[in-house]
Amino acid sequence: LKKAEDLGEFKIIQILWENLTKAPNMVVPFGDDVSAFKIENNTVIIKTDMLVGRTDVPPTMTRWQAARKAVVMNISDLAAKGVKPSGILVSLGIPPYLTEDEIVQIGKGLDAGANEYSTHILGGDTNETQDLIISVSAFGVAGRGGILLRNGASPGEIVATTGPFGLTACGLKALKEKLKAPEEIMRKIVDAVLIPRARLKEGLTLTQSGGVTSSIDSSDGLARSLYEISRVSRVGFVIDKMPVSKEASEFARIHDLNPLDLSLYGGEEYELIVTVKPELWSRVDEAVRREGGRLLKIGRTIAGEGIFLKRGDEMLEIESGGYEHFKGN
Amino acid sequence: LKKAEDLGEFKIIQILWENLTKAPNMVVPFGDDVSAFKIENNTVIIKTDMLVGRTDVPPTMTRWQAARKAVVMNISDLAAKGVKPSGILVSLGIPPYLTEDEIVQIGKGLDAGANEYSTHILGGDTNETQDLIISVSAFGVAGRGGILLRNGASPGEIVATTGPFGLTACGLKALKEKLKAPEEIMRKIVDAVLIPRARLKEGLTLTQSGGVTSSIDSSDGLARSLYEISRVSRVGFVIDKMPVSKEASEFARIHDLNPLDLSLYGGEEYELIVTVKPELWSRVDEAVRREGGRLLKIGRTIAGEGIFLKRGDEMLEIESGGYEHFKGN
Repeated sequence: LKKAEDLGEFKIIQILWENLTKAPNMVVPFGDDVSAFKIENNTVIIKTDMLVGRTDVPPTMTRWQAARKAVVMNISDLAAKGVKPSGILVSLGIPPYLTEDEIVQIGKGLDAGANEYSTHILGGDTNETQDLIISVSAFGVAGRGGILLRNGASPGEIVATTGPFGLTACGLKALKEKLKAPEEIMRKIVDAVLIPRARLKEGLTLTQSGGVTSSIDSSDGLARSLYEISRVSRVGFVIDKMPVSKEASEFARIHDLNPLDLSLYGGEEYELIVTVKPELWSRVDEAVRREGGRLLKIGRTIAGEGIFLKRGDEMLEIESGGYEHFKGN
Repeated sequence: LKKAEDLGEFKIIQILWENLTKAPNMVVPFGDDVSAFKIENNTVIIKTDMLVGRTDVPPTMTRWQAARKAVVMNISDLAAKGVKPSGILVSLGIPPYLTEDEIVQIGKGLDAGANEYSTHILGGDTNETQDLIISVSAFGVAGRGGILLRNGASPGEIVATTGPFGLTACGLKALKEKLKAPEEIMRKIVDAVLIPRARLKEGLTLTQSGGVTSSIDSSDGLARSLYEISRVSRVGFVIDKMPVSKEASEFARIHDLNPLDLSLYGGEEYELIVTVKPELWSRVDEAVRREGGRLLKIGRTIAGEGIFLKRGDEMLEIESGGYEHFKGN
């Protein structure tokens, strides 16, 4: 008799999905970053994601930071689809031992997360739980550019990310295993964990640019996110410039860690990964820069399956993997 | 230093609310059954409510029933506002010890809850938690009749409910304390707990009728729900016909319980409580009957504060109270 801990998160999602009646004419396929439904000429986009104290709150993260993060991680999914949030609902599970001040900090953290992205908490629900649970729902309306799904990539396109990877994995290691590093590096990697940011400006600009064919938020890790686009778009990838952050490289060197693994399998990062039509690259790139963001070209899509890392003349296959609930790694 | 368990659910909600920036032009006031935002000429209604294994799943309730209930309790809030659900999202917290079959039952239960009200599960999120957590978000669009808020009641109106009270309180007592009763009574009271139903048809009809001035779902109990309408509409109530269910009366008689308490303070019931303009009562009542539902006239609204039970010439003040998280009663 298999249990949840043997099945793992992805098998559980598959089992649930197989037991659901499919809605006719789904605007967004099941399993994309968000869900959607039509109202007359508008598409309402909605996302729900839960922060769980025991698995999602690393050592030293305050209640304020946890509450803010719960909001930001939902806004990141809207950002990946190019949708501005219209409002946020929060369903809270509060353990009996939380102090009044901690509850105030949760309120302020939720508010900060929403306000940073020009939206508000509109309502919610409070419950009594053993562990802190912050279940957030974020919603918005698709703009004129429509929304960016995961399944639109074709062979021969450019793959890009809105920033480098590896900071969060280093930060988590530093916090959990009490690893040290020079102050500037430490601040950068720990901030990535405690005060993550959603790439909302970038996501909105990418959608309006007309040059982006697919998009995903990288919270499941770079490798898994590429595999997800690969699976639903039916393309492969050749990555020839791994977007490893400077600080992650340095932290890896100090502690004799593999910077590639840290960047591919870290997760809890909120960069966007997009595929771009090559003939529109300059236009897309400039539009993002004008908004104060950036796009790192990391490789290209290819016909067929597989995700490969090109180093000189070598082609290494990148394996899937990364954080999975119940498999805790 | 006060803790959550000392503060109680309602004080916690107040603290959170005080620490949130208020959205400009809120379509629905904070604290009503649902939240809302405008898209052009449409109002999108959204609700989130969490089912927690330890507090919301009584003995003998199956995983299928728990999952179905988590959906139904959200649809009930939409029903109270007169809004048809357009879709459901689910954020799940699964404990590691759940079996594959239990996960299948959760999927089927969610699906059943949605399908009974002609809607679908559109997406969600799965997490690892210590206790079973089913956080549901339900959303829909306000129809031409607008939505029914809690704050529209005036003195001199009729107060009515879509069904009798007390079944759930008796059912919970029967399950938790293993109390017995004749089979027919047992089935009725236990079903009320295990297979609750949302009054969606009634809610839609009541909204379209044009004669209803305020509406609330009774999941916090009859007394607390009346107090909530009283507080935001600034009216009092005289209840002259307590809607105690036949089976609850009989169960109370057998076990020497107070049927009034069971009906006023039970909670977890999903009847709608509405105030109706007296001159439109017949029209409203007939419309609900045509849809196969019913309206029980239980009293009237009065100027001033207080909620009173009229028995012959006596006027007894009904106290607030009922289930509150952290106060567990």
